[in-house]
Amino acid sequence: MNGARAVLNTLVHGGIDVCFTNPGTSEMHLIAGMVSTPEIRGILCLFEGVATGAADGYGRMAGKPASTLLHMGPGLGNGLANLHNARRAGTPLINMVGDHATYHKPFDAPLDSDIESMAGTVSAWVRRTGSSADAGQDAADAVRAARTPVGHLPGGVATLVLPSDVCWSEGGVAVPVPAAQAPSFDEVAVERIAKTLRENEGCLLLIGGGNMRRAGLAAASRIAAATGVDVLAEKSPARHERGAGLPRFDRLPYPRDLAVRRLAGARHLILAGTREPVSFFAYPGKPSTLIPSGCEVHDLGAASGALEYLADLVAPGTAPLVTDEHRPALPSGELTAEKAAAVIGALLPEGAVVVDEAMTSDQWLPSATAGAPLHDWLNITGGSIGMGMPVATGAAVACPDRPVLNLEADGSAMYTLQSLWTQSREGLDVTTVVFNNASYAILDSELRRVGAFEGEDVRRSRSLIDIPGLDFVALAKGMDVPATRARTTEEFTRQLRAAAAEPGPHLIDAVVPPVTGGS
Amino acid sequence: MNGARAVLNTLVHGGIDVCFTNPGTSEMHLIAGMVSTPEIRGILCLFEGVATGAADGYGRMAGKPASTLLHMGPGLGNGLANLHNARRAGTPLINMVGDHATYHKPFDAPLDSDIESMAGTVSAWVRRTGSSADAGQDAADAVRAARTPVGHLPGGVATLVLPSDVCWSEGGVAVPVPAAQAPSFDEVAVERIAKTLRENEGCLLLIGGGNMRRAGLAAASRIAAATGVDVLAEKSPARHERGAGLPRFDRLPYPRDLAVRRLAGARHLILAGTREPVSFFAYPGKPSTLIPSGCEVHDLGAASGALEYLADLVAPGTAPLVTDEHRPALPSGELTAEKAAAVIGALLPEGAVVVDEAMTSDQWLPSATAGAPLHDWLNITGGSIGMGMPVATGAAVACPDRPVLNLEADGSAMYTLQSLWTQSREGLDVTTVVFNNASYAILDSELRRVGAFEGEDVRRSRSLIDIPGLDFVALAKGMDVPATRARTTEEFTRQLRAAAAEPGPHLIDAVVPPVTGGS
Repeated sequence: MNGARAVLNTLVHGGIDVCFTNPGTSEMHLIAGMVSTPEIRGILCLFEGVATGAADGYGRMAGKPASTLLHMGPGLGNGLANLHNARRAGTPLINMVGDHATYHKPFDAPLDSDIESMAGTVSAWVRRTGSSADAGQDAADAVRAARTPVGHLPGGVATLVLPSDVCWSEGGVAVPVPAAQAPSFDEVAVERIAKTLRENEGCLLLIGGGNMRRAGLAAASRIAAATGVDVLAEKSPARHERGAGLPRFDRLPYPRDLAVRRLAGARHLILAGTREPVSFFAYPGKPSTLIPSGCEVHDLGAASGALEYLADLVAPGTAPLVTDEHRPALPSGELTAEKAAAVIGALLPEGAVVVDEAMTSDQWLPSATAGAPLHDWLNITGGSIGMGMPVATGAAVACPDRPVLNLEADGSAMYTLQSLWTQSREGLDVTTVVFNNASYAILDSELRRVGAFEGEDVRRSRSLIDIPGLDFVALAKGMDVPATRARTTEEFTRQLRAAAAEPGPHLIDAVVPPVTGGS
Repeated sequence: MNGARAVLNTLVHGGIDVCFTNPGTSEMHLIAGMVSTPEIRGILCLFEGVATGAADGYGRMAGKPASTLLHMGPGLGNGLANLHNARRAGTPLINMVGDHATYHKPFDAPLDSDIESMAGTVSAWVRRTGSSADAGQDAADAVRAARTPVGHLPGGVATLVLPSDVCWSEGGVAVPVPAAQAPSFDEVAVERIAKTLRENEGCLLLIGGGNMRRAGLAAASRIAAATGVDVLAEKSPARHERGAGLPRFDRLPYPRDLAVRRLAGARHLILAGTREPVSFFAYPGKPSTLIPSGCEVHDLGAASGALEYLADLVAPGTAPLVTDEHRPALPSGELTAEKAAAVIGALLPEGAVVVDEAMTSDQWLPSATAGAPLHDWLNITGGSIGMGMPVATGAAVACPDRPVLNLEADGSAMYTLQSLWTQSREGLDVTTVVFNNASYAILDSELRRVGAFEGEDVRRSRSLIDIPGLDFVALAKGMDVPATRARTTEEFTRQLRAAAAEPGPHLIDAVVPPVTGGS
């Protein structure tokens, strides 16, 4: 078999069954191989940022890697922003990048560029395959690398650079891929933390990563009930299982000053599946760390089972405290982000996957949906906007039987809007709500803070922040996705119900006044 | 003044008067500075690839750099593909990237990444400013670097990384920027090439870069008339001045085999403003170079005046041969890419700037427009698609009194469609023609070449190449750009005339059957 087939067959051995592609000429042998490898579903994306974000969403929900196929350096460039989010989420992901033939590389042809330097900025592992004979083993190593924990994160981006002659040359061999092994934890370290918890006041347990699902949440709740420890969740979990029947914890606030206030008084910070909290941005005269001075940090590690073992040590026989089902009443009148959150909380279907890139419009969502039926909530992990629509696309591929609700800000929606085309082509059950406030509202307060403008400068400042004139109904129709506009709460309620009742993608352009954001 | 203002005022000293921005929180002091610096026009883009491509288009037409303002590593990532094209075009460009405060950097906050490694793949020059006191000098060095020739190219991308505390801290000083100096050429080397031309058969003059404008074209034509040398233009000139009143030369064909055939028999290849030609992609069993074996290569260099000096040596008193004005007749009936080319040739307004990313649909355009009134033709230099709409946007900013015609393939249009919003916001006179053939036609023949599919595989192969369901009229309306659809030649003619008659942006969704492309 040729190198391309050796790679694809090895991925199949490793359980990879999806490839989000945006290929070019140098990837045609991989595409030809994919066409005749029915075990891998090739899904065409019209922009590489859609492909990489979809692979991130798929990996978060499927718990195994998806693959991508990108066209050389510029194609990788277009995919970097969402690979950055995948890196911060710890999503396992096989990122395949085609390149010129090995012998063509020295000629510096127009599309040539330094792929490895680019890939290194987002990848846990980067390799360029040198010959078709190595292709299978390199693919197997990529799968292993993608599943290898990186610090507190469960996996990472493994970038495999595949020159075209490696793909078209015979001599490839498909290679078996060993099953992933769950990392173990250090029992003695956990016992030491149990002692800290028992013996000290001012303990705060900060949970994140894999502990944001049922088992971890239950353990944290038991620990809190037995010891009185203050429990907080990280700011942006990659995947948060929540709703009625699960314990509920607040998340660390995004605005730096609020986060500092929330952590004030902690003398022992116990990290469970997350890293030391830092301010998202720097601000003049304010420290970057959020940890109070003198607070001791204890790291439980990210290995599955560590938090449960801690619960068994300090809270044997204690049951977790779970949220009852409760939903907000349906509001009425002119639509606002706050009222939209109530409607979403009132209607959220059981088993929904919510992808949240609502930015300034999202502040009412956590409490409005806290008592909705069980659902998953996926967040923007690396701060790079344009993740919502692609992640929703990949989550829908991973979970064909679950409804996906994508809550988008208008500014963020415009980065990777091409996702809608893939949602339509693949018939994915994604409902996108665009909070259309016609501005980069999150930058509004920031700009006001640093500039006090008068006269003509006021107009100039608005022209760098406002984004009027976006008609998301027309944009969605342009990609064959049915869409409606809601200006009142009643319209929004009716449209959200209709979208939920019908399979396939829908978009609601929710016209709301801007909310002045934190930063 | 603070560091932000030192940078901006220095750019003003260097003649930079435009900044294409897509900022975030870390760039707010630069935005505040821009608001109160009326000498710099800040132009908001909804995606970084629009900002970088617009800066490329501006630089090609204005002959001086535009600046960009991008948000950290992921924002730079989104802008890389069009910076790659700018690098291959040799466009002078000041690429500003905001970053975390210097003291925040060690905390590895979520948006943090390795900006320099990413920037290095597309930049001739990269610097991170360390303090507000250095900001002005660094900006001056960036301007100088952007204007410094790189090999045969006239300039390059200068990336200046600006930490937020450098921008907000006082102590900045604006710095004067020396005027750019035109590089000189080696007269003795030109005289040696004159001797080669006079004494040998089988000479071929390959022109490119700055020689694709009036003076270079005239010199090449005089040389051909006097010596009988075969003259050919490079495949993808960044900017090609052409039309009635100028000499016309064929361009090196894109398909490798055609290019090899065109160069066969050359014994002396004289390069004038371009590099040694190589195959765009590699193909099994075929060499990468296009230069015939045994052919000697002579490099005239890219310095302005070298080709004219050569003409004065070998063709004193010889006049250039120029094209008369001639236009195709208007065709009729169902629209095809070939007929659309004839309509464009028949109607192209004087002084138009044509931005060509029509891919497989562009093969009839060069001859159909060769006798149209004087115009400029901008090409895809680095092979990275998604350049057309942004480059057209930047060209329109640089040339407010000239009509811009953007010829787009449907697949390419979907990479940076957000350009339409900036065209609308700024009222730019750009007419976009999308050749909508509902497929990645350029990949179609490539996939057929490597895969011979049957049964279910045929469907799977189409689903990775076809891109049906794109309604560009709706997409344009979604960004407030008036749009129409043409299915017949008569409709296309009427719509192109109407778009030309009215200022501001327009889009025509030109529905055409696919053309099977070269590769």
